[in-house]
Amino acid sequence: MVKRYLQVKPLDDVLALLGREFSCIPSVITVPLENASGRITVGPIFAKYSVPEIHLSAMDGIAVVSADTKGASEQHPVTLPRTVRVNTGNVVPQEYDAVIMIEDVWEESGKYTIRKSASPWQHVRPAGEDLAESEMVMPSRHRIRPHETGGLATYGITEVDVITVRIGLVPTGSELVAAGTRPAPGQVVESNTLMAKAILDEVGATCIRYPFVEDTPEKIRNAIRKACSENDLVIVSAGSSAGTKDYTADVIAELGVVLVHGIATKPGKPAIIGRVDGKPVIGLPGYPLSALTVLRELVLPLMRMYGLFVPPYRIVQAQVTTALAKEIGSDEYVACTLGKVGDRFVISPQSKGAGVQMSAIRSNAYIRLPRDSEGFNAGDLVDARLLVPEEEAENALLITGSHDPAIDYLADLLRPKGVSLISTHVGSMGGILALRKDECHAAPTHLLADDGTYNITYVQKYLGVTEVDLLCVAERQQGVVSRDGLSFTDLPGRLFVNRQKGSGTRMLLDYQLKKAGIDPGTIPGYEREVTTHIAVALAVKSREADAGLCVYSAAKALNLPFVPVASERYELAIRREHATDPRVVALMEAIRSKEFKSILEQLGGYETMETGTIRQGSP
Amino acid sequence: MVKRYLQVKPLDDVLALLGREFSCIPSVITVPLENASGRITVGPIFAKYSVPEIHLSAMDGIAVVSADTKGASEQHPVTLPRTVRVNTGNVVPQEYDAVIMIEDVWEESGKYTIRKSASPWQHVRPAGEDLAESEMVMPSRHRIRPHETGGLATYGITEVDVITVRIGLVPTGSELVAAGTRPAPGQVVESNTLMAKAILDEVGATCIRYPFVEDTPEKIRNAIRKACSENDLVIVSAGSSAGTKDYTADVIAELGVVLVHGIATKPGKPAIIGRVDGKPVIGLPGYPLSALTVLRELVLPLMRMYGLFVPPYRIVQAQVTTALAKEIGSDEYVACTLGKVGDRFVISPQSKGAGVQMSAIRSNAYIRLPRDSEGFNAGDLVDARLLVPEEEAENALLITGSHDPAIDYLADLLRPKGVSLISTHVGSMGGILALRKDECHAAPTHLLADDGTYNITYVQKYLGVTEVDLLCVAERQQGVVSRDGLSFTDLPGRLFVNRQKGSGTRMLLDYQLKKAGIDPGTIPGYEREVTTHIAVALAVKSREADAGLCVYSAAKALNLPFVPVASERYELAIRREHATDPRVVALMEAIRSKEFKSILEQLGGYETMETGTIRQGSP
Repeated sequence: MVKRYLQVKPLDDVLALLGREFSCIPSVITVPLENASGRITVGPIFAKYSVPEIHLSAMDGIAVVSADTKGASEQHPVTLPRTVRVNTGNVVPQEYDAVIMIEDVWEESGKYTIRKSASPWQHVRPAGEDLAESEMVMPSRHRIRPHETGGLATYGITEVDVITVRIGLVPTGSELVAAGTRPAPGQVVESNTLMAKAILDEVGATCIRYPFVEDTPEKIRNAIRKACSENDLVIVSAGSSAGTKDYTADVIAELGVVLVHGIATKPGKPAIIGRVDGKPVIGLPGYPLSALTVLRELVLPLMRMYGLFVPPYRIVQAQVTTALAKEIGSDEYVACTLGKVGDRFVISPQSKGAGVQMSAIRSNAYIRLPRDSEGFNAGDLVDARLLVPEEEAENALLITGSHDPAIDYLADLLRPKGVSLISTHVGSMGGILALRKDECHAAPTHLLADDGTYNITYVQKYLGVTEVDLLCVAERQQGVVSRDGLSFTDLPGRLFVNRQKGSGTRMLLDYQLKKAGIDPGTIPGYEREVTTHIAVALAVKSREADAGLCVYSAAKALNLPFVPVASERYELAIRREHATDPRVVALMEAIRSKEFKSILEQLGGYETMETGTIRQGSP
Repeated sequence: MVKRYLQVKPLDDVLALLGREFSCIPSVITVPLENASGRITVGPIFAKYSVPEIHLSAMDGIAVVSADTKGASEQHPVTLPRTVRVNTGNVVPQEYDAVIMIEDVWEESGKYTIRKSASPWQHVRPAGEDLAESEMVMPSRHRIRPHETGGLATYGITEVDVITVRIGLVPTGSELVAAGTRPAPGQVVESNTLMAKAILDEVGATCIRYPFVEDTPEKIRNAIRKACSENDLVIVSAGSSAGTKDYTADVIAELGVVLVHGIATKPGKPAIIGRVDGKPVIGLPGYPLSALTVLRELVLPLMRMYGLFVPPYRIVQAQVTTALAKEIGSDEYVACTLGKVGDRFVISPQSKGAGVQMSAIRSNAYIRLPRDSEGFNAGDLVDARLLVPEEEAENALLITGSHDPAIDYLADLLRPKGVSLISTHVGSMGGILALRKDECHAAPTHLLADDGTYNITYVQKYLGVTEVDLLCVAERQQGVVSRDGLSFTDLPGRLFVNRQKGSGTRMLLDYQLKKAGIDPGTIPGYEREVTTHIAVALAVKSREADAGLCVYSAAKALNLPFVPVASERYELAIRREHATDPRVVALMEAIRSKEFKSILEQLGGYETMETGTIRQGSP
């Protein structure tokens, strides 16, 4: 049987439908004041008594009868007949009506002398000055800020009724294993309900994760029934698509009604909205980025309808680095990396695979392309929604070009300095082109020219008169990775895995093949391209290929033999105009640090003699 | 003995001193992944295995050998010799190298036919596509966002080492009682360590509140010693001033060294920085707003030095409504209310009493006046730091003028609609003047003219040709509040409590006194002014006065007898240009709602016949 979606509805229509079909009345829980911060009140809160209840001294000093002080001056000091020593906050006894600061009195054997009269009620906090019994402290649906817990305690409050939405999270799938269990082939670590709980608890929902449910209609039915009886809303993770084991929609239809199956968003299409016992049941797609999109674009707005506080995303205008075509009909959400180069934000779409969870970790912004959009061209200005605080986005250091594990360690050294290094892996040539368009702060590159020199030829060719410096990260070994210790001359006849065109490693391979007189046609798999060193090593380890060309650290990471082929100059091309940018300065300092050299030595395969040196690239 | 501060240091110098005197190395705690959201990593986190570990199908469909599919087309369908049915996420067995979507195949008796060839590796998620074993998932000092918990689970992580600062909070003071205990005269509810815990836990510190410590040097000494042995940093609440029982500084000096006593900030001056066992010990002033200022301006920046994430305040430019003079020498922090009237933000300083905790609840912004500033003039543009999300500040509805409890209930009705009603109590005339300067959305007013009519005379006089409407809240009773049921003619010879000049109630009193031929000189206490109805009732209840004039609801709230004197028209003056502002529209709807009428009836003393009607005020 081949199933298809019953219908695919635009997101706006689905949100409108949620508002129409459900009353969205939140649950009420009572929390002790210690846990009230960030919560939203159900009803107004009133002071249980006046604060203060009687007149208090507002200063350290003496309580006086103001009439006694009349006429006191420098020339005519007055020694007061009746006084009481008071500290700040002490009661001013009923017969007194003013306080004089201790700095302004002269004491001798228990009598106080003053040189200035006191006006009635000076330095006295009258009863009810702060708030009177029965006055409203805060209204309904007020979000309690951390400092307000203090005031609430003062006004006699010890617990607060606040709103929440009780959400049952039901993970389904016979392939699921718990976090911490290494998944066997075909198994998957259950991460979507964990992610949903973190996202929804943060806005004040109260999530329960139920045990994993196997893919049988009966078990799914029981689990949904139980979750519906215990919560305001149920989210069923996975089983919402149209595969042979996607039972969620059928089960919801049995227990209640399926209102929507398929939402016109990308990712996130295979979502379900149903109603069971009058409560919303949402089927979350299985792919993490699809699930994340449905949580962000559908479930969080729904939480807003229930009255929870969901902070809006900050939006900045940014210039896109690459074109993105899309078909009309779906709202599309594109995970991106964003940073400020010069005085403008630039933004780059990431890999679009919905299974690549790292793109949710790497991205600091995203773009929403509405249904009627056909995408954008490189250079267009778009609205970018920030996924980090604006301050952090402003401090992003964009590194675009050839990837090396050492870059991740530079990110690790820079983060404690407040700089977020964001690397985009587009190969050396991609980096040079990004630098030409001034879309990154530094471009890591290892491009071998015909004369055997590195990088300068390409920088001069592509950046012309633009002033560019080359900052050396390291001299780095490239070599043959294999399971059996193959060397370069062993390659003909072996199943090879190659790097993409435009990458420095691909150019190095071609240069070395030519030099050795080996015809690429004699190497099966020469056409099979992957995009990182570690992907080459992994293809070898998983027996997809017998050999590849990569850096030593990638082979070492996966415990594979490595036979060196050549040493190359891995440098960062940097426009001279950005050399004084504090982020670039921090980068240079990190590269020249002792910690970094010792990291390179531990990783292995790097020669650090040239690390941190700068040479002129162009013009 | 009269103590004085040893020294008063500028805040900047104190912050620099903290950086110099303390290494600010955070503690490390291990948290399960479920609790990792919002926390900051100690070191880099690496993938425990590749994801996926082997090739998986990226679609629901069939796994094929791409070579078998060559030549397939609409004209020449190909029935495939070997296939395997796969769902999304299933393993693609080793001999297969592509997946065809189920929508693109035709099945008959277990054989699949296709009409389009498949390219090698299409719809296959290669091993390591997401991340390869040993690759870095996130660097040191990375703040884990909620959605990232999912990715961490996927990469084999179940717990994370994160940074924190262990803070011991030591409340001192023999006058302290716990929240929930009604304080006897001279007692105070301990709220500062509760507030400190909420503020500091929010940024990732780990606070312990210790039991209350009585004001004896020995007990304080033992408490500080114990807290120092168990934490990275200790905050001693109160006892930091120069009163007779302020032992904190002396005790710190005995146990270690006092580095600072007195910081040049207002509020917040009586703060202490000491060092005991190499750890910072901070003496927090006792007044809540002073304590809050020290927490915000000193302790939070210190948390940043430890590496915790403290979000910066958003700053907007706003026009101040009133002048504020200050002396040179201290940084001054002024709690304010802020809102957008027309297209600009306006901001009003609140009551400056450091004991008034409500001003921390009422304020949605604050102004920092640096040491060298002499204050500002009305109309100046200042940088306002927001204490609420910008969206909430944008939606503030500013009500400035005469206060009535009904206004608090309107705030309560409006908050669930997303409107924050902020009322500033400056009396009817103050409201009219604010409206003239276009500094509020509505001005509640009950100003009696000589001809016995309400409001119009004043609106026309002060707003001239500006178009203003008057929206009736209610006809409201004013009367004599007393403990013994006094009436208006009983006033001569009784101790009275009056309202401030410019308030409608004061004008009503004078009008009625004149009408009844009573000389104000015959009423003792006529000169004693308070600023709200409830303050009048409270002065009567606390026996500070025998009688006053106020609205019925204030007398009722405190269970006091009330004898009506006159009915008055309590109206909101609104510039017509703001009548279509969504906030003002929401206000009108709230006033006209059934809920509001029933609230007025419950409060008592209101006639609702005219509630919600609009009449032309001027011109």
